[in-house]
Amino acid sequence: MRATTIHAPRDIRLSEVDDPTITAPTDAIVKVTAGCICGSDLWPYRGENDIDAGSTIGHECVGVIEEVGSAVTSFKPGDFVIVPFDHCDNTCPHCRVGMQAACDNLGFTASGQAEYSLVTQAEGSLVKTDGMPDASLIPSLLTLSDVMATGWHAAVAAGVRKGGTAVVVGDGAVGLCGVLAASQMGAEKVIAMSRHEPRQAIARQFGATHVIAERDEAGTEAVMEITGGVGADAVLECVGTDQAIKTAFAVARPGSTVGFVGVPHGVELPVRRMFQKNVGLAGGMAPVRQYLPELLDLVTSGAINPGLVFDATMSLDDVAEGYKAMDERRAIKVLLQP
Amino acid sequence: MRATTIHAPRDIRLSEVDDPTITAPTDAIVKVTAGCICGSDLWPYRGENDIDAGSTIGHECVGVIEEVGSAVTSFKPGDFVIVPFDHCDNTCPHCRVGMQAACDNLGFTASGQAEYSLVTQAEGSLVKTDGMPDASLIPSLLTLSDVMATGWHAAVAAGVRKGGTAVVVGDGAVGLCGVLAASQMGAEKVIAMSRHEPRQAIARQFGATHVIAERDEAGTEAVMEITGGVGADAVLECVGTDQAIKTAFAVARPGSTVGFVGVPHGVELPVRRMFQKNVGLAGGMAPVRQYLPELLDLVTSGAINPGLVFDATMSLDDVAEGYKAMDERRAIKVLLQP
Repeated sequence: MRATTIHAPRDIRLSEVDDPTITAPTDAIVKVTAGCICGSDLWPYRGENDIDAGSTIGHECVGVIEEVGSAVTSFKPGDFVIVPFDHCDNTCPHCRVGMQAACDNLGFTASGQAEYSLVTQAEGSLVKTDGMPDASLIPSLLTLSDVMATGWHAAVAAGVRKGGTAVVVGDGAVGLCGVLAASQMGAEKVIAMSRHEPRQAIARQFGATHVIAERDEAGTEAVMEITGGVGADAVLECVGTDQAIKTAFAVARPGSTVGFVGVPHGVELPVRRMFQKNVGLAGGMAPVRQYLPELLDLVTSGAINPGLVFDATMSLDDVAEGYKAMDERRAIKVLLQP
Repeated sequence: MRATTIHAPRDIRLSEVDDPTITAPTDAIVKVTAGCICGSDLWPYRGENDIDAGSTIGHECVGVIEEVGSAVTSFKPGDFVIVPFDHCDNTCPHCRVGMQAACDNLGFTASGQAEYSLVTQAEGSLVKTDGMPDASLIPSLLTLSDVMATGWHAAVAAGVRKGGTAVVVGDGAVGLCGVLAASQMGAEKVIAMSRHEPRQAIARQFGATHVIAERDEAGTEAVMEITGGVGADAVLECVGTDQAIKTAFAVARPGSTVGFVGVPHGVELPVRRMFQKNVGLAGGMAPVRQYLPELLDLVTSGAINPGLVFDATMSLDDVAEGYKAMDERRAIKVLLQP
């Protein structure tokens, strides 16, 4: 099949690789309808993560079941499914408390930017739609495989509550989905920290009541002004850099929680400030399967339209250009059609 | 008055200093019935915190109101009061959400190991007993000024729940109070990590169902065995060292929270592990006033007896020996009688 592979920093190719095959009874093969490029794919692209030269890349996709293993009974060829980037059995002790990201049988989508993708633990991981979805829904459904579920996780971890104030640090696709999540959860003030015009516009569509273009101290002061000097009731950190974490803790009110979902790179947590201000930290890799049924309802009912984070759609053939566009921040998030 | 002063590492003296006086309408003077030495007093004693040579030390006490400022209307001379180590107005935005440790008018007890102590924000900070308490209750009431409230805060921050498993790292007085708190909150298994016979005995009296003497990897393995390989639902970190924090995160199950109340010294938070395992961190300086009414009820009704953490009672004259005994771990916690 045709699949995206990474060979070195900034060396992304569309290659011919072996089709995935069922090797365990819990496996399923999905024919990818749409995949996409994640902000976290840019870490190896930029050489900030190790690269296994020639390996496939891409962990977000939706598609149609092609084949299932013998232990998969709830799905059959032809079903349209959302594939969480983190696969889980949904029965182990961690799954049972809603922490599917730590499943005893954890697996990951390894070829989301390709024609086919293997799902381990298909029975526990997949969620199917009621029939074939309308093409207009595909982008929003695709966000449920990672980015929207991750933004949602940030809001859950931060403890967003009805009537409170939520600050979202980061205006990437995850941050924008965090804005949407905080708004859905009833935050009265949703403050998006963003200096990019097109992203600000999406943030407002997603429910941001305030947009702050300033960063660091000026950004913190702006949040303090909006919150009457108190700080935010909940803070969503959706970047993963030290600067973003520092901003998140600076704007969090005492007793609140920073929900973090950006994979930390070079982060040193301000432990003394956290202690002195009683500001907690929670979050991590999103347990996508936990949120999928609820988010699927919100998308199919039209309550949310997270697919707006895709501002570019490309053929899989152009995947290298897709990475380039996201790296240079010319695109927020690129949808790929195999 | 006679008051404890610190002059250099391991140089604790009982000195003659000026009596505290009312300088603001919100002040009150308390004649100390009992004070005590805190584990955190050992940081400067051991030279690990800066010392302002000649300054008074001690932040825990109970006693009788001697004099109040003009704005203090709920207390009068003769009332027996518990003095939270952190003073608060109990009306500011932080106090109103229960985070009195971040009060806009925050103050601290500065001469708890003395004859008299000044309370700023007396109206918001103090809680009085119903008449003069029986002498037998004094030790338990004294713990409410800090150590029991701090152990309680660790349990609240860690999210201890009925039926769950709680691990307490640290067998100092705060850790023991954390055991008592977790037990009161209904944890089914309360695992105390302690290698000291007398502390283990108090932990058991306080409700520990398991005691683990091993540390580090062996200690972690022991917790994993008790929890069926899953890890603890809640972890109370009551020390503040890097080793204790590392142990706390190692035994916490994915999705759980480490509640920390030991002032961090040389701690580097394991941010990648926190992210990968979705283990949060919450806590900090305890908002004592928040918990005081509830804890006072538990003490006066006899439901809890946290005063058992005092295994030595000394005259204030012997305060230097008290520090020595705690530093050498000959005493868990020393009560001082002025």
